[in-house]
Amino acid sequence: MVVSLLEKVRALNPIVANVANGVTIDQVANAQNAIGASPIMSNAPEEAEEIVTIAQAITINIGSLWAPQIQEMMALMTAAYQQQKPIVLDPVAVGSLAYRQQIIEQLLILDTPTLIRGNAGEIAYFAGIDWQANGIDAGHGNSNPVIIAKAAANRLHTIILLTGPTDIITDGQRVTLISNGTSLFQTHVGSGDMLSGLCGAFVAVHPADPYQAAIEAAATFAVAGELVATAMETPLPGTFYPQLIDYLFHITPAKVANTVQLSEVPTHE
Amino acid sequence: MVVSLLEKVRALNPIVANVANGVTIDQVANAQNAIGASPIMSNAPEEAEEIVTIAQAITINIGSLWAPQIQEMMALMTAAYQQQKPIVLDPVAVGSLAYRQQIIEQLLILDTPTLIRGNAGEIAYFAGIDWQANGIDAGHGNSNPVIIAKAAANRLHTIILLTGPTDIITDGQRVTLISNGTSLFQTHVGSGDMLSGLCGAFVAVHPADPYQAAIEAAATFAVAGELVATAMETPLPGTFYPQLIDYLFHITPAKVANTVQLSEVPTHE
Amino acid sequence: MVVSLLEKVRALNPIVANVANGVTIDQVANAQNAIGASPIMSNAPEEAEEIVTIAQAITINIGSLWAPQIQEMMALMTAAYQQQKPIVLDPVAVGSLAYRQQIIEQLLILDTPTLIRGNAGEIAYFAGIDWQANGIDAGHGNSNPVIIAKAAANRLHTIILLTGPTDIITDGQRVTLISNGTSLFQTHVGSGDMLSGLCGAFVAVHPADPYQAAIEAAATFAVAGELVATAMETPLPGTFYPQLIDYLFHITPAKVANTVQLSEVPTHE
Repeated sequence: MVVSLLEKVRALNPIVANVANGVTIDQVANAQNAIGASPIMSNAPEEAEEIVTIAQAITINIGSLWAPQIQEMMALMTAAYQQQKPIVLDPVAVGSLAYRQQIIEQLLILDTPTLIRGNAGEIAYFAGIDWQANGIDAGHGNSNPVIIAKAAANRLHTIILLTGPTDIITDGQRVTLISNGTSLFQTHVGSGDMLSGLCGAFVAVHPADPYQAAIEAAATFAVAGELVATAMETPLPGTFYPQLIDYLFHITPAKVANTVQLSEVPTHE
Repeated sequence: MVVSLLEKVRALNPIVANVANGVTIDQVANAQNAIGASPIMSNAPEEAEEIVTIAQAITINIGSLWAPQIQEMMALMTAAYQQQKPIVLDPVAVGSLAYRQQIIEQLLILDTPTLIRGNAGEIAYFAGIDWQANGIDAGHGNSNPVIIAKAAANRLHTIILLTGPTDIITDGQRVTLISNGTSLFQTHVGSGDMLSGLCGAFVAVHPADPYQAAIEAAATFAVAGELVATAMETPLPGTFYPQLIDYLFHITPAKVANTVQLSEVPTHE
Repeated sequence: MVVSLLEKVRALNPIVANVANGVTIDQVANAQNAIGASPIMSNAPEEAEEIVTIAQAITINIGSLWAPQIQEMMALMTAAYQQQKPIVLDPVAVGSLAYRQQIIEQLLILDTPTLIRGNAGEIAYFAGIDWQANGIDAGHGNSNPVIIAKAAANRLHTIILLTGPTDIITDGQRVTLISNGTSLFQTHVGSGDMLSGLCGAFVAVHPADPYQAAIEAAATFAVAGELVATAMETPLPGTFYPQLIDYLFHITPAKVANTVQLSEVPTHE
């Protein structure tokens, strides 16, 4: 695998505007900063248009939903579609809550985000496949996650990054699997949100190919998490997080390329 | 002491819905996750009813109060009372601020929370006892904290967990004291909020006996904090927090039972 | 340099009320607590007046702006001016966003804050000097930061703390430079916000001389950051933050005085 976008993020220092989950907003900002991007957060629809103007990408996270934030999401996304800036959507708990499904449908009416990052329970919602999501957690179901991801990508005509023990990136046709990572991603709240934030940083510097941006963001994050966890005597979620930020700060393209366990699923499988 | 609920939290992985303090929302989510629960946060009254439906307990924290959040608290608590889900209330700074007293009185009109966790300055308010609270800190007063806790429990007909150098759990009759802990709980902002969050996790798996749930939550947290602080060469609040999350992740019932310094105050004392 | 206010903060344990940046609110609270102050956060205009009454200083941060927060800022600042409590303003990204400039102008109509802490891109806005700010980052420009800081102080008749590789404190006439610090302040999101929070703690105990309070806050923070970074085998932003909180907790006036590299710019330079 050639990792080319990481250096581009560091060289271009793109501004990524975030409507963040209040729970993990600090983690997202610090992960974006560590990788080389410049985060900005806003909750004011009044500044949405100019925020999008100065930003190279936006990320939308519905994790701690409240009404004024929805207006901000609508305003930022509308401006981003108009200005053709890429949008990463993180649909936290959409598989478990009808209200969040309603909000997501409102957001999808505007247009389709460039990339959606979620766990199996969240992506199954977009695929229209039955799944027992468990709040913010993936939950369980009988379908193959690859089929879920492809179905969601095909229904929405977008790129899907379905994260779990194996990360799945698909545009509905092509499917890339990344099997790095650590179980600490499940035990540390904020892991998924940070990865969505990193997707924003990578797609910011390569908006023409969000499939590749998603692959590199997922690979970088999974490799960083795996190597941090492996180096810990006992993998534990509290001290994991600051070390993960450290690792994102100094990770190199060569380290990602040499460590990533990536495979492509044949298109007609 | 028999510690039975910790394993139950890990086995059942209950969803705890939180209206959180913006300051410490990340800490609460990660503490709940580390102990084995699944946190979900919401600020949208529109999803209160279904959030309560998927949750096994809710926690309400008034630490960074704003008007839309109050509507969410009302909506979540109303749904929780209807669905008979346990509620943990953390009345941050209620001893210092008349507006927060007014909000708390509005919340109490709905019904009585299952458990209230606060410091002496906060619980003294519910007891109707004079006390000089100091913002978010306990402050100082002349009354015995055990008397304050019992008075509050008796006035409200609920379980009180009054935290301080000694933690006091009471239903107005029975009183349990836990003398573990660390002074770092005072120097790290978020300690009380995390414990309230853990109370939500423990009461979620044992709603029939919130007195026992409060004892086990307080014992688990106090033992974890004490053992982390004791193991530090110099106890310091910044590196304490990630290690505390680590410890909550791997603490065992046996460790709690063997370390806890617990005593019961005779009822007619 | 005589460092006298640090011990005063620890002795008096002042309450500092914050309208915080949602991204870094946890960091600000913990930094204030570590240094010896007692933070309180609020977003409810209804409690602004009594919050100011119990507080010795307030800090206002516009980093994650949303409309209801602006009302809270107005209410807190109005009460603070009436009660003559010092105000520290952190104008995050004001150099990049016209909407934030509009909000800042609304806030300045009330009266002038005691102290404004920002990077070159933010302070250049107040100075009316051209500068290419980059979102939350300083960006770049051709003017000398000392000239920018003095111009801002003179236009607003207030104290300016312009932070960067060299921190500049000025009242428009006197200029103090502090050249301690670490590049990790740039790679850790929240560094500037924490320093603004510390300014609140220092000015709370010495409201008669905000120039001196700003110098001591900046010196304490820069020395702490520098010594933490120097002690790290490889300076990295994730593990830097918890250690910085540790250091703020145990830093002594003697350590600050012995480490600070401070110079005064002659007035007629």
